[in-house]
Amino acid sequence: MSSSFGSVFKISTWGESHGVGVGVVIDGCPARVRLCAQFIQEQLDRRRPGQSDIVTPRNEEDRVEILSGVLDGQTLGTPIALSVRNKDHRSSAYDEMQHTYRPSHADYCYDAKYGIRAWAGGGRASARETIGRVAAGAVAKAVVQQLYPEVEVVAWVQQIHNIICPVEPQLVNATTVESNIVRTADAASAEAMAEAIRNARAQGDSLGGIVACTVRNCPVGLGDPVFDKLEATLAHAMLSIPACKGFEVGSGFSAPLFTGQQHNDAFYMEGNRVRTRTNNSGGIQGGISNGEDINLRLAFKPTATLMLEQDTVNDCHEQVTLRGKGRHDACVLPRAIPVVEAMAWIVLADHILKQRTTHIN
Amino acid sequence: MSSSFGSVFKISTWGESHGVGVGVVIDGCPARVRLCAQFIQEQLDRRRPGQSDIVTPRNEEDRVEILSGVLDGQTLGTPIALSVRNKDHRSSAYDEMQHTYRPSHADYCYDAKYGIRAWAGGGRASARETIGRVAAGAVAKAVVQQLYPEVEVVAWVQQIHNIICPVEPQLVNATTVESNIVRTADAASAEAMAEAIRNARAQGDSLGGIVACTVRNCPVGLGDPVFDKLEATLAHAMLSIPACKGFEVGSGFSAPLFTGQQHNDAFYMEGNRVRTRTNNSGGIQGGISNGEDINLRLAFKPTATLMLEQDTVNDCHEQVTLRGKGRHDACVLPRAIPVVEAMAWIVLADHILKQRTTHIN
Amino acid sequence: MSSSFGSVFKISTWGESHGVGVGVVIDGCPARVRLCAQFIQEQLDRRRPGQSDIVTPRNEEDRVEILSGVLDGQTLGTPIALSVRNKDHRSSAYDEMQHTYRPSHADYCYDAKYGIRAWAGGGRASARETIGRVAAGAVAKAVVQQLYPEVEVVAWVQQIHNIICPVEPQLVNATTVESNIVRTADAASAEAMAEAIRNARAQGDSLGGIVACTVRNCPVGLGDPVFDKLEATLAHAMLSIPACKGFEVGSGFSAPLFTGQQHNDAFYMEGNRVRTRTNNSGGIQGGISNGEDINLRLAFKPTATLMLEQDTVNDCHEQVTLRGKGRHDACVLPRAIPVVEAMAWIVLADHILKQRTTHIN
Amino acid sequence: MSSSFGSVFKISTWGESHGVGVGVVIDGCPARVRLCAQFIQEQLDRRRPGQSDIVTPRNEEDRVEILSGVLDGQTLGTPIALSVRNKDHRSSAYDEMQHTYRPSHADYCYDAKYGIRAWAGGGRASARETIGRVAAGAVAKAVVQQLYPEVEVVAWVQQIHNIICPVEPQLVNATTVESNIVRTADAASAEAMAEAIRNARAQGDSLGGIVACTVRNCPVGLGDPVFDKLEATLAHAMLSIPACKGFEVGSGFSAPLFTGQQHNDAFYMEGNRVRTRTNNSGGIQGGISNGEDINLRLAFKPTATLMLEQDTVNDCHEQVTLRGKGRHDACVLPRAIPVVEAMAWIVLADHILKQRTTHIN
Repeated sequence: MSSSFGSVFKISTWGESHGVGVGVVIDGCPARVRLCAQFIQEQLDRRRPGQSDIVTPRNEEDRVEILSGVLDGQTLGTPIALSVRNKDHRSSAYDEMQHTYRPSHADYCYDAKYGIRAWAGGGRASARETIGRVAAGAVAKAVVQQLYPEVEVVAWVQQIHNIICPVEPQLVNATTVESNIVRTADAASAEAMAEAIRNARAQGDSLGGIVACTVRNCPVGLGDPVFDKLEATLAHAMLSIPACKGFEVGSGFSAPLFTGQQHNDAFYMEGNRVRTRTNNSGGIQGGISNGEDINLRLAFKPTATLMLEQDTVNDCHEQVTLRGKGRHDACVLPRAIPVVEAMAWIVLADHILKQRTTHIN
Repeated sequence: MSSSFGSVFKISTWGESHGVGVGVVIDGCPARVRLCAQFIQEQLDRRRPGQSDIVTPRNEEDRVEILSGVLDGQTLGTPIALSVRNKDHRSSAYDEMQHTYRPSHADYCYDAKYGIRAWAGGGRASARETIGRVAAGAVAKAVVQQLYPEVEVVAWVQQIHNIICPVEPQLVNATTVESNIVRTADAASAEAMAEAIRNARAQGDSLGGIVACTVRNCPVGLGDPVFDKLEATLAHAMLSIPACKGFEVGSGFSAPLFTGQQHNDAFYMEGNRVRTRTNNSGGIQGGISNGEDINLRLAFKPTATLMLEQDTVNDCHEQVTLRGKGRHDACVLPRAIPVVEAMAWIVLADHILKQRTTHIN
Repeated sequence: MSSSFGSVFKISTWGESHGVGVGVVIDGCPARVRLCAQFIQEQLDRRRPGQSDIVTPRNEEDRVEILSGVLDGQTLGTPIALSVRNKDHRSSAYDEMQHTYRPSHADYCYDAKYGIRAWAGGGRASARETIGRVAAGAVAKAVVQQLYPEVEVVAWVQQIHNIICPVEPQLVNATTVESNIVRTADAASAEAMAEAIRNARAQGDSLGGIVACTVRNCPVGLGDPVFDKLEATLAHAMLSIPACKGFEVGSGFSAPLFTGQQHNDAFYMEGNRVRTRTNNSGGIQGGISNGEDINLRLAFKPTATLMLEQDTVNDCHEQVTLRGKGRHDACVLPRAIPVVEAMAWIVLADHILKQRTTHIN
Repeated sequence: MSSSFGSVFKISTWGESHGVGVGVVIDGCPARVRLCAQFIQEQLDRRRPGQSDIVTPRNEEDRVEILSGVLDGQTLGTPIALSVRNKDHRSSAYDEMQHTYRPSHADYCYDAKYGIRAWAGGGRASARETIGRVAAGAVAKAVVQQLYPEVEVVAWVQQIHNIICPVEPQLVNATTVESNIVRTADAASAEAMAEAIRNARAQGDSLGGIVACTVRNCPVGLGDPVFDKLEATLAHAMLSIPACKGFEVGSGFSAPLFTGQQHNDAFYMEGNRVRTRTNNSGGIQGGISNGEDINLRLAFKPTATLMLEQDTVNDCHEQVTLRGKGRHDACVLPRAIPVVEAMAWIVLADHILKQRTTHIN
């Protein structure tokens, strides 16, 4: 249950890692948005395995098919169904996991919850589930940018293990991020991070890190006060990404170190636009966007699948050991970037459409 | 819009700070849960102003009235309406704010979103809105504890400004927390924190901090994989609390500093119960509770209302200065504790009820 | 559960017949709609008991209080809470019903569903529940008419028992309807119907009938194809009114008697407006309004509460007899008119707001 | 928007008539329900074109593919995606409709709502959309029957034009219904109805009728009082079926002809089961099932597509004439039977799952 997200721009993803395929249905996309398969494919290509030597070599083309909702390059206002067929799955690599719970994976909890699980490849808990998110995110981006062409969402790897990329959010350049295999914001960090990932993998180990994401030129007024505050729905969206353990907006966990006087963002006028001198609020006040950059940071744990022997239990409740097989990312962050951006676009599209219902004229 | 939260145990809060009152309607509370006004009142008393010398002296009794849904101490299965009348509001203290935007407050964004705002006392963006949450949280607690009496939710102040309470989550005692006015986990920290808050207030300044929250004895299997993962709905709930800037589950923002081998929680058997040796997962794996303690941390910014002169703009877009009036908390954390707990209970009640629909027998 | 209705303009009603009061929270009403208590009160006055000699003499003033969401005669965009206190309830009249199930009432089913029920006055299954609907309907009407002042909703009693009011829908005049105590469309029918109701009551018996409802000048384009077709949401709304047993749109149950050639509504141009020569479609095609009058008909069963002895069972599953006490309507239709109109306004407001999210410009 | 239905057992259908295919995603189906493609295919075979000489000869195999959510003949608790590829579409037959609005079709309203439409084959407004419903209905049936094997849903054609099948609902036999091409309840009616349909088609005309549907052995207690009454959600479901113009439960539009004394269903005990002597309530009281047969009747208008010349307008707002082409049903009712049953199963599954959340033990 609850493979659905959004209140007006609603998405429902489906699919198991080693099943027929994965996909998404978007119900609530407005009519006459320009959209083509290539636009969606570009985002999926950023997410797909086998892009570089630091990600899983699983060879999946991840070719998207638009099944409905689009005619002659425009959306119809009807549901947009998108699907990707699974190809390179080798369930045999997972034989051992059929009865043994991988530590810090979803296996045990799925069994406890449902009494059944699609064990091969992690089933629904596999990172392949994020294909539906990335595809829907591309549609959301098309919606947002047709209405507000100036809106920009950029995510990048800000930290891998203890290596920190020092570029300030407002200076991060999307082209630079895309130009290195780690998807970080400068070349020097990229090199050090890639090396760290290669080393971890060589040892059968894995690494985590921090993804930063900034939304630029966000329209003022997005976000529903009280429960569906803009930051609350963004947190929901981001914490739903596999391996995400923490979320910050603006000053985040540094906020306590400021006093109120230091933390408050003074207003001033820049021409006829209300601006703030600082941006500790991270672009959101009272749950509503104020037009400044929305700055988020997300913590990701190291990949749970290791090529090392680990203590665990099996579904007969016996204590056993397990050594990972299969082809996995020793660090998910480079491929998580398009997923984080997709979730941000989906949240923005939803709030932009909802905003049209909150005032009378 | 979206003053509603939850999918089965649904709450809708209403009310402005200086309006007639505030309240909540709970639609989806099961029948035959034992419930009385006193049980709800106890939680509201923990949240109400005027409790101690470190919180706002605003004098509100915050007396709850059960308007519907309960008969002879039991819920009827029909909507439970709860209301609290506003009493001690002095709108005159807010006259200046009618046209001037308080920095880092919701004022400007409300105006930009709606073209109108209840300026007195912050209207809907006031902390009084959390009364509905605390009242609904008490009902949620009644639901959860009638089904699972062993479940415990404890929140406490773990940090104020740079003062950190060193007690480990598993050692935190609810009675100790409640026995000091800061609601932290030991007496020494309480004293230091209270002093810091008094100092900040004396200077017209304010402080933020970190709230920790732990759920003990949570049933295994709660949480909907994919978008409504247990941690994702908890993050949504917590980031919707005013002034919350960050959310962590388990290792949170420390996760990147571990390698996978260090971070993975090895399974073992404790009798016939599946346990983990460590708990970096924070009690949730694959979005589903695994029975270990659910450990959360929440960052709160310092109160935005200051008794100091600040630069800002007014609704004619003129640059002006503003000095706060009214009676405010120099630090919201002591009174935020029951709000954090309430949101946790609400999320748990919702997932517990949803869990009954996910399997066939 | 599910005392909530609507997807953007969402209402949640609460309250038991003999509890503290009844009310509604509206979440999703746009900001800056002109609204005052008097506007809502006018609709409640049309619904309240004691209006005439053919309705229940229960003496309830049903005075509405706006608890939140409105400032200086305008909506704030935040939840609008409305409440009405219960006054003239005499639970003693219901003592017998505490353990005995009234035939064709909700008593038995509530017990079977919840294992508990608010027996006095029918609790939540009482017609008093419709107060929340009528109050919310007034707000919905304010929303619709501020955007589309030309939209008109008129409901009237078209039939009581076997007495049929012959006025054609397009000729029905709202003032005429309101000018007679039955709320039918001509004086002669009103007299005959009132007489029939008085006779039934004199015998301790009750009558049902048919309510017709027409929406004039509806904007073209309302309604979501597939599941939330305009007629489908109207049917949902109307069948949720107590005692409603049937719903027709346009030709309704007469449709089968036409051939396609006879039934199809030919299009033609009236100036630059697309019109249809006939209106068997009842103003809705493919689930979407086409701008013609939306014509509905609703069947209501005779009131279940009778002042006659009836066979029934009690909650110990013994066969017993029961004779109704209390003050009841021998025919609900005159007071159902504002409820039907309210539900129509609520559905229209919801679709009008949703329509703003379905196209991009 | 709103191609989604249900609150716990949620379905989202997608697909245009002449697009790549049609399908449905079911989010909220419990785990470990026995399910195979053949079970779904059987229902689709009852709906597919080309079954007999009285339905459209369009030759579509309508082969379902299970894309996710099922493993080794059991549901996983994760979303079930089902798709059917379109095959035999001849868009050329629709060339004329690209710019001309078919009378009493959705064409004009889609254009008015969205500013775009998939004109070929009616796009989303085509009867092919009901494939997703029938497929989801089969899954719902599997859910219901695994929990309550005794529950039975039978729909049949009760009237075509002026030919009425006289069999009483409680005597209708599903096998008899399925044994004749009209899907009516006796052979004599079947013959007369088939003949009427053939005659209408020979004249290029079309016929409507009435479908009856009965739910037997329904568990007591289903339905949410107030807005999601069992009959209200059934009405929503049924009125969302293309061409449906009216809905009755129990006595329906005959209710006004009874007095209360005649209409009330007296309770009595049958062993330890509470029964009613009559069933004017149609198995539902206070919005909740009482265990008696749920009896529904649905009016369907004659097919709008005619092989006759009709007056209409085009999208340049010129008055033109149109003569239908393509292969259409002169009467939709025989193929509507599995659609009606599917919607009933979907509503039952949803209420059965919701019912598990309404009581505490």
